Amino acid sequence: MKSKLAPPPSVSYTFTVRLRFENRVGRLAEILSAIGRAGGDMGAVDIVRVEPKTMVRDLTIHARDEEHESKIVQAIRSLRGVSVTNVSDRVFLLHLGGKIQIQNKVSLNTRDILSMAYTPGVARVCKAIAQDKGKVNQLTIKMNSIAVVSDGSAVLGLGNIGPEAALPVMEGKAMLFKELANIDAYPLCLQTQDVEQIVTTVKHVATGFGGINLEDISAPRCFDVERRLREELDIPVMHDDQHGTAVVVLAGLRNALKLVKKQLNHIKIVIVGSGAAGTATARILYSAGARNIVVCHRRGILEPSQFQVLGDMQRWLLQKTNPQRQRGDLSRAIEKADVFIGVSGPGVLSRRLVQRMAKNPIVFALANPEPEIAPQEALGYCRVLATVRSDFPNQINNALAFPGIFRGALDARASQINEAMKLAAARAIADGISAAELNEEYIVPSVFNRRVVRQVARAVAAAAHRSGVARRRSS
Amino acid sequence: MKSKLAPPPSVSYTFTVRLRFENRVGRLAEILSAIGRAGGDMGAVDIVRVEPKTMVRDLTIHARDEEHESKIVQAIRSLRGVSVTNVSDRVFLLHLGGKIQIQNKVSLNTRDILSMAYTPGVARVCKAIAQDKGKVNQLTIKMNSIAVVSDGSAVLGLGNIGPEAALPVMEGKAMLFKELANIDAYPLCLQTQDVEQIVTTVKHVATGFGGINLEDISAPRCFDVERRLREELDIPVMHDDQHGTAVVVLAGLRNALKLVKKQLNHIKIVIVGSGAAGTATARILYSAGARNIVVCHRRGILEPSQFQVLGDMQRWLLQKTNPQRQRGDLSRAIEKADVFIGVSGPGVLSRRLVQRMAKNPIVFALANPEPEIAPQEALGYCRVLATVRSDFPNQINNALAFPGIFRGALDARASQINEAMKLAAARAIADGISAAELNEEYIVPSVFNRRVVRQVARAVAAAAHRSGVARRRSS
Repeated sequence: MKSKLAPPPSVSYTFTVRLRFENRVGRLAEILSAIGRAGGDMGAVDIVRVEPKTMVRDLTIHARDEEHESKIVQAIRSLRGVSVTNVSDRVFLLHLGGKIQIQNKVSLNTRDILSMAYTPGVARVCKAIAQDKGKVNQLTIKMNSIAVVSDGSAVLGLGNIGPEAALPVMEGKAMLFKELANIDAYPLCLQTQDVEQIVTTVKHVATGFGGINLEDISAPRCFDVERRLREELDIPVMHDDQHGTAVVVLAGLRNALKLVKKQLNHIKIVIVGSGAAGTATARILYSAGARNIVVCHRRGILEPSQFQVLGDMQRWLLQKTNPQRQRGDLSRAIEKADVFIGVSGPGVLSRRLVQRMAKNPIVFALANPEPEIAPQEALGYCRVLATVRSDFPNQINNALAFPGIFRGALDARASQINEAMKLAAARAIADGISAAELNEEYIVPSVFNRRVVRQVARAVAAAAHRSGVARRRSS
Repeated sequence: MKSKLAPPPSVSYTFTVRLRFENRVGRLAEILSAIGRAGGDMGAVDIVRVEPKTMVRDLTIHARDEEHESKIVQAIRSLRGVSVTNVSDRVFLLHLGGKIQIQNKVSLNTRDILSMAYTPGVARVCKAIAQDKGKVNQLTIKMNSIAVVSDGSAVLGLGNIGPEAALPVMEGKAMLFKELANIDAYPLCLQTQDVEQIVTTVKHVATGFGGINLEDISAPRCFDVERRLREELDIPVMHDDQHGTAVVVLAGLRNALKLVKKQLNHIKIVIVGSGAAGTATARILYSAGARNIVVCHRRGILEPSQFQVLGDMQRWLLQKTNPQRQRGDLSRAIEKADVFIGVSGPGVLSRRLVQRMAKNPIVFALANPEPEIAPQEALGYCRVLATVRSDFPNQINNALAFPGIFRGALDARASQINEAMKLAAARAIADGISAAELNEEYIVPSVFNRRVVRQVARAVAAAAHRSGVARRRSS
C-alpha cells in the first residue's frame, strides 16, 4: 500500500537498465508502456549498439524506492524476448570511489615549482611558521579548511549506523561547503563514540583546520563534545545539526511572523523534540527574544523527572522554557500556541491539534523524511507550513546557514561562532526575501541562491568583529 | 663567507621587486648590472605600467638565500632615482592560503545531483555500507585516500619545529601524491608527540583513509608508531622517511653494483646514521641479501652501550649488522668497504676515508641539504656518487618510491605494505633504467618519469597479491 506521504518517483532512486531485445518496430513502445504501468518515470532512452537482429538500449528510470525499482525491473523481465543484461543505480554510480578529490593549486610538473612547493623551498615557509605560529593561518590550507567530523551515531534519520556508513553524508557535506561557500572541507569519521576520545582526537588533528563542523553526533553527547571543543580550541566549532537547523528555523519564523503581524517576544511557541535540533532551536529563539517557549517530547511537556542525565542543556531548558509551568501532553501545550516546531517524527501533529492553536497558526513540521503532519492534512488549517522536504514549499534546509556561517567565520578568522554570529546569520537569511517577495509559500530563500551565502558570510563576519572574536582586521 | 657547498642562485629563493624609476634609455641596464654585480640571477623582466616620466617594472630575481636576497635589494635601493615599492617572494606567494584544495567530482548545481549526492539519495548508500562495512572501500573516498600524518618532530633537516610548521611539507607531500600517482592525500599534523596518543588518534581517524603515510616523525618513536599502527590497522601504514628512502637507496645501489660488477651479498656496506632512514636502509639491504653491513653513528660503529633506549629496531641492528664485530670509529669501519651510505650530516666523509675503501667505491652521501662529502671532493675518487641534491647527478629522491608504493597498495587494496612489496618497488625503480642507459651518472630515474610510478605500482600490487595481503582480486 502506498502511504499518503510516499514521495513521487525521484532521482534519488534512479537506475539504468541495459536491455537487449528484438529489433522491430513497436518493441520499444511495449517496453516503455510496461514501465509506465509499473509506475516508473522515464528518464533518458539511449542506444548502446544495434546488432543485425537485436538492439541494446540503456533506459534510465526514476522509481519511488528500492522496492518500486525491483517491481519495475520485474515488469520488464516479464516481457517475452526482452533480456535485462544489467541494472545500475545512478546514486551508487555517483558514489563509486567517493565524491570529492584533492586538487593541486599549481601543477608540480617542473623542477622549479617542485623546488618551491616542496624541498628545498618549502623549508623557508616552515621556518617562518616555526618562528611565528600565527602564520600557519596564511601560509597553509588552514586558512580555508574545515573538518567535517562525525562519529556516525545519529546519521540522517538512520540512527547509529557507525562511522563507515556515515562517510558518504560527510563527503556530501564537504561538497556543499565547496559548492556553496568555496570552503575546502574534509570528512573525518571517527572510530569512537566516547566524548572524551572524540574531543581529544579532534584537538589532535585541528592543526590544519580553520574550523570544525560537527555532524550527526547524537544528543546529549553532542552538547558536551561541542562545548568542550569550543572551550579548548581557538577555532570555530559548530554542531550543525543543532545550530544550522536552529538558525534557519529562526530565519523562517521571522518571515512567517511578518506575514501574520506577530512579534517573537509576544508569542507562544511549542517545540516537539528535545534532541540536538530542538534544544538549539529553543536556545536561539530565546536569544532572539522569544519568552514563551514550551518544549515537549514524545511523552509530553518536559519535566525534570524525564531526564536520565541532567546536563547543562537540559537544565537550561527546564529553567528558561515553559514559563507558565504547564504540565501534560502536547494537546495541553499546543493550546493557543502561535507556532508549532516539530523536530521529532511523523504523526505527532494532527489537524485537530492545529485547530487548538491561536489564530493564523504557523507549523514547522521538520521531521525527516516524513513530517509531523502530512502537508495535505495541515494546508488550509495553518497559515504557514514549512518542512524539510524539497517537494513542498518552505524547505527548512540547513544548507542555507552553515556554508555562510563558516565562510564568515573563516573570513574574519573568528576564534568561535558565537550567539551574535548565529543571530546575524538568521537575519541575513530572512532578509534574503524582500517584503515584496514574501508570502506564505516563500519564507526562506532557495539553497541554490548564491547571493544568500555571501550575505550570510558578510553578516557573520561583521558580527564576529562587533563581538570581538574576529582576529583578522576588517578589509 | 660563502661555503664551498653553498647552492647556486635558485628558484627556492626567487623574489620579485617592483621598481619605479626614471624612464630613460640605459636606466634598466644600470639596474640589471647592479643586480648582476650583487650575484643575483635574473628571471623575468616585466612592465607594470609606463607613466609620463617614470616606468614601473617587476623584476624577478633568483638569489642564493635570504641574506643574499637582502643584499640584492640593498644594491638596487642604493641606485639613485630608483625606488623599490614592493618586494614579494615567489615561494611565499605560492604558499598563501595553502597549496591544495578540495574539488567536487560532480557539480552540485542542480536539485537532482544534490538529491543523489546528499539527502535523500545518499541514505541508500549509507544503508548499504551499514549492512556491509567493506563497501566503504568502493563507495567513498577511502578507495583513493591517504592521510599524510606528522607530529612535526623531525621536519626536513629542521628538527622538531612542531605540527604547524610541518604543515607546508605535508601539503607538498599531498601534492606529490596527486601529481605523481593520482592519490588523494590529506595532511594531518598532530598536536601531540606521544606515541600512544599518535597511535590512538590515527586509529580514530582512519575510517576514511585507504592508507597512512607517516612523515617526519623522529626516531626512535617513529619505529614504535609505525609498528603499532601496522599491527592495529587493516590498511597500509608506511613511514616514508624510513622506507621511501631505503627503497630508493636499494634501487640505486642495485644499479651501481651492476656498473662495478659486484654482488650485494658479497660486499661490505657502511651506513652512517642510525635514525629512521639509516635503520630502514640497513633492514632493506639485509632483506635484499646484503650480509656485511656496518652501521655507525657520530661516535663510531654501533655498540649496545650507545643506546639510551634499546627498542626492537636497535636490537635488530646489533644482532644482524657488523658480523665481524668491528669496533672503533668510521675510519675503522670504512676499511675495504665497497659502499658508503650516509644519512647523517655534512663533513662526515673525507677524501682520505674514501681512499681507504675497496676498489670502485660507491658513495651515497645523502645528508640534506649538505652531503657527507662535497661532490667536488669525492668525484674522481669514487666510482659512483649519489646525493639527495637536484643540482648533482643521481638524486636519491623518495618521490621515486612512495607514490608508486601507495598506488600499488591501494590498487590491490593491500592490508599492509610488507617487505616483499618494498623489494618489488626497489627492483621496479632500478629497472626504470635500461642496461644501455645505465652509467655512473644515471643510476636512478628522474622523479618526473611517470612511467616509473606506473611500473612501481604494478610491481607492488603484484607483490601484494603474491604475498597474500591483497584484498582485491587481480584484474
